[in-house]
Amino acid sequence: MSRVIRVNVKNKEISQEQLREEYRFFGGRGLIAKIMTDEVDPSCDPLGAGNKLILCTGLLAGSNIPTAHRLSVGGKSPLTGGIKEANSGGTAAYAIARHGIKAIILEDLPAENDPWQILRIKADGKPELIPADQYVGLNNYALVEKLKERFGNKTSCITIGRAGEWLYRNSSLQVTDFSVGYPTRSAARGGLGAIMGSKKIKAIIIEESSSPHSFPYHDKELVQETRKKLVQNTLNNPARQWVMTVGTPALVDRMGATGFMPVRNFSGEIFEKLENISTQVYLKRVEVGGGKNSLPCQPGCILRCSGRINDSEGNFVTSGLEYETIALCGANCDIDDMETIIQIDRLCDDLGVDTIETGVTIGICMEAGKIPWGDSEAALSLIREMMEGTELGRLLGQGAAKVGAAFGVKRIPAVKGQAMSGYDSRNIKGVGVTYATSPMGADHTAGLTMQFGLDPLQKEGQVDASIKAQISSACQDNFVCMFGWGDFTQPDILPNIMKGLYGGDWDMDKIMEIGKETLKLEVAFNKAAGFTEEDNKLPEFFRTMPSPATGSVFDIDKEDLAMALDAL
Amino acid sequence: MSRVIRVNVKNKEISQEQLREEYRFFGGRGLIAKIMTDEVDPSCDPLGAGNKLILCTGLLAGSNIPTAHRLSVGGKSPLTGGIKEANSGGTAAYAIARHGIKAIILEDLPAENDPWQILRIKADGKPELIPADQYVGLNNYALVEKLKERFGNKTSCITIGRAGEWLYRNSSLQVTDFSVGYPTRSAARGGLGAIMGSKKIKAIIIEESSSPHSFPYHDKELVQETRKKLVQNTLNNPARQWVMTVGTPALVDRMGATGFMPVRNFSGEIFEKLENISTQVYLKRVEVGGGKNSLPCQPGCILRCSGRINDSEGNFVTSGLEYETIALCGANCDIDDMETIIQIDRLCDDLGVDTIETGVTIGICMEAGKIPWGDSEAALSLIREMMEGTELGRLLGQGAAKVGAAFGVKRIPAVKGQAMSGYDSRNIKGVGVTYATSPMGADHTAGLTMQFGLDPLQKEGQVDASIKAQISSACQDNFVCMFGWGDFTQPDILPNIMKGLYGGDWDMDKIMEIGKETLKLEVAFNKAAGFTEEDNKLPEFFRTMPSPATGSVFDIDKEDLAMALDAL
Repeated sequence: MSRVIRVNVKNKEISQEQLREEYRFFGGRGLIAKIMTDEVDPSCDPLGAGNKLILCTGLLAGSNIPTAHRLSVGGKSPLTGGIKEANSGGTAAYAIARHGIKAIILEDLPAENDPWQILRIKADGKPELIPADQYVGLNNYALVEKLKERFGNKTSCITIGRAGEWLYRNSSLQVTDFSVGYPTRSAARGGLGAIMGSKKIKAIIIEESSSPHSFPYHDKELVQETRKKLVQNTLNNPARQWVMTVGTPALVDRMGATGFMPVRNFSGEIFEKLENISTQVYLKRVEVGGGKNSLPCQPGCILRCSGRINDSEGNFVTSGLEYETIALCGANCDIDDMETIIQIDRLCDDLGVDTIETGVTIGICMEAGKIPWGDSEAALSLIREMMEGTELGRLLGQGAAKVGAAFGVKRIPAVKGQAMSGYDSRNIKGVGVTYATSPMGADHTAGLTMQFGLDPLQKEGQVDASIKAQISSACQDNFVCMFGWGDFTQPDILPNIMKGLYGGDWDMDKIMEIGKETLKLEVAFNKAAGFTEEDNKLPEFFRTMPSPATGSVFDIDKEDLAMALDAL
Repeated sequence: MSRVIRVNVKNKEISQEQLREEYRFFGGRGLIAKIMTDEVDPSCDPLGAGNKLILCTGLLAGSNIPTAHRLSVGGKSPLTGGIKEANSGGTAAYAIARHGIKAIILEDLPAENDPWQILRIKADGKPELIPADQYVGLNNYALVEKLKERFGNKTSCITIGRAGEWLYRNSSLQVTDFSVGYPTRSAARGGLGAIMGSKKIKAIIIEESSSPHSFPYHDKELVQETRKKLVQNTLNNPARQWVMTVGTPALVDRMGATGFMPVRNFSGEIFEKLENISTQVYLKRVEVGGGKNSLPCQPGCILRCSGRINDSEGNFVTSGLEYETIALCGANCDIDDMETIIQIDRLCDDLGVDTIETGVTIGICMEAGKIPWGDSEAALSLIREMMEGTELGRLLGQGAAKVGAAFGVKRIPAVKGQAMSGYDSRNIKGVGVTYATSPMGADHTAGLTMQFGLDPLQKEGQVDASIKAQISSACQDNFVCMFGWGDFTQPDILPNIMKGLYGGDWDMDKIMEIGKETLKLEVAFNKAAGFTEEDNKLPEFFRTMPSPATGSVFDIDKEDLAMALDAL
């Protein structure tokens, strides 16, 4: 599990090494923070030779622990200009782990006229670069179809569509899904697909290992025993039922009713057409044409928060939606038509862009009067412009903040250049603190605060709650999927798993230190990249325009935001 | 000369006050730095309620010293996000001084549906706001025509075109020219027109004073005597002859031959069609239709570096061109047709945008393959898109850096978000240091280094030369036009003028301290606005792509740039 593959895309050389000993207890986001700190000049151009694209697995990957096979992707973000990690489900992380690989690092830049390449990990574990010019211009669905035709159906694919080729700062890496086989899992945020595009790597494909590595358990019995307990705890946890039975669309009803869910470009209103995109409507829609809910996106996942959405003839359209996609591409655009949201989701996966950034971008176009509010056809046509690479499409591909600036829109819901996800900071202030202060830019996965039982509208305690959530999220991103196990911090679970997997003494304090260290490295990287406390703020309108839903403004003291993470 | 007019555009209140005593020995750029430091939160949104638009005159304005009537405009730049001062010739500064006004400050933001306004300084000196909705949508030529019709031909106009209305981050304020009467003088850089637009002030008009203030000379005889000497020195200075006989287009031949002049989006090449846009070609063109050279743009200027360019029927087209316009809108776009450059200049003044930012933007569109290199018609059509406010036009209005990002162009010649002017930093490294380190963003007027006699390609000494030039430029911007008097530092001139105007002891050291203090305040403002040493760098390609003309790269140590101005 400790093989590191380095690909120099300039001279086409591939080298291999063992993971450095001091990296041993970092995985996923933390490992990316370590490698970035040691190897990448924070002042580099994100699309230049100095940046690297790092793909790696978490600390439990390759073991039999559920939700452990998440793929982390990182680099200096073309969208935020800071360090970025985005992680994805799908089959790739497990496939990589089965080859004994911990990380893949793409380095340097090819010459202007060099051909495109694919990095292939062959069944025997050997990496090679193969020519890929024939795949240029393909979006993810067509690309994966061709790759699977050629390399076998069991091959895991990490791909970029035209968005990544064209260096859209809103471009994702797409990963093949375990249940449906299509490229529907995304490492979506921060434009990391553009780094892969800048290195002219169209795909990384991992063939199923012909001699799979198994995890070098230190005490397999302890792992088995703890695993059982964990699975039981998780399946019986009432707070996880909605994840397992619905997936994140279960959040639509709740977030929509409280004013958390963004409506019409973060107007702060309640969506009066909420019932048209409700959880029930979603669940009904999933049943059409033999669609299915509760499918795992990665091998061995017991949470199974994804699904398969078909058209009425039974043809696959897209995976189960996420709450964020419904919120940003739906309510935030005044769109209440589930079919449109499904189409947007499909097109975004195909082109290889983030549905959050795209939804906010469309909302901004509506705010600017470019297209009417709630106009489904017009919204889809914007994505088609992105797919065709028209003038307007290339602008849209640069993300919400740049589009807002180009159109002179005043209300731009973004921090550090990255669009906000599905929470209006006036009505859930702790998430606003996370948006403002996270080194990741506005990103709910960096630290949600709902679980702390604070009144979301109160001022007090939100900064502390956000810091706690950010440490916990950064920690979790070293280990497992954020939907992991319900309560990630159960004291008898993760420490025992670590003991069983790696040996040594573990408790939750020691484990949380990994999250803290991750966050510290990220903050330091961004500081060296030129970020200051000026970057730790929300757009002014959250402070000056009360939410009509609640009358609330975001009123956390600026000074408290400025230095929130400096004392870690 | 010490009246300050404050206009609150939210509640439409105008108040008046005396200039604070501690501001007394700051003018123009320095006065803006002082007021910004004392009154504007560096972290404000440039287009929000917290920013101010400050217009003021220099320390010698209203006196009989030549080139003293320059109008400084400042605020937090919508283009760079830092402090910005841009200054303009024309009639406004003198007219303001004759009303005894030192500064006009526009504050706050109007409500969304408030009407547009004009700030009028009436002949009796009283300021008032008058409704201006009927002028909305007009560009500067039509607007000034209507304003002069209504308020008299001698009224000085400071106006914005559609660019400012639409909050283009590349929008200028235009000022009426002394010789030709049209809005051909620009406070062009940094998008300050958008601040005026955000405050919904379409024009500031200054009627000729009915009871003009004369400068309260302390020792008029000393001023008269020094003035004579100064005029003689200037007229006899061989280094000023080209300014007086040609204007800045005299630089085309020299800069074109050395590789200083940008060619095809800062490719570093020599322009092989230089002879088509040479100084001689320019001078010949000026003669067409009764055009004229050597016209002063402001009252009392003895340098007279402007002119009047007519069409063959004798109709006015535009003022005398600047070197920067020929370089950026010509060679930098592979355009060698003087007529096209003249048209671009006219359209930019009319719309109210910076010809430098616009030329670099067009070059980037050519680099991106949006329009062919050297295609005059296509270049003009881009400006027309900006004028019509199309999708593309609004993007183009946001300036070169944003357009480059939107189109995924790698070679973006900008610093702090502002496009470079007419000097390729590989071939005149001292200017590169200025571009990198000036608080103003890439701007030649912030500190040219040619006068120091350094080999422009050598590495040593460039940082020191730039710092010297930056202090001197900042100083000059407190007093007079940068073309001022040839050698601004003649020890017996400016100190005696200050003695004669204000009394007290003056020497060049004391005068230079004003420049240093100005620069220090600006650097501190930007730091508080979130700028770090990461912002003090040139785009990477200047270091990695040698100029084909000279083989040189920009190789000044990054560490030397990072802190260059910190030790002031």
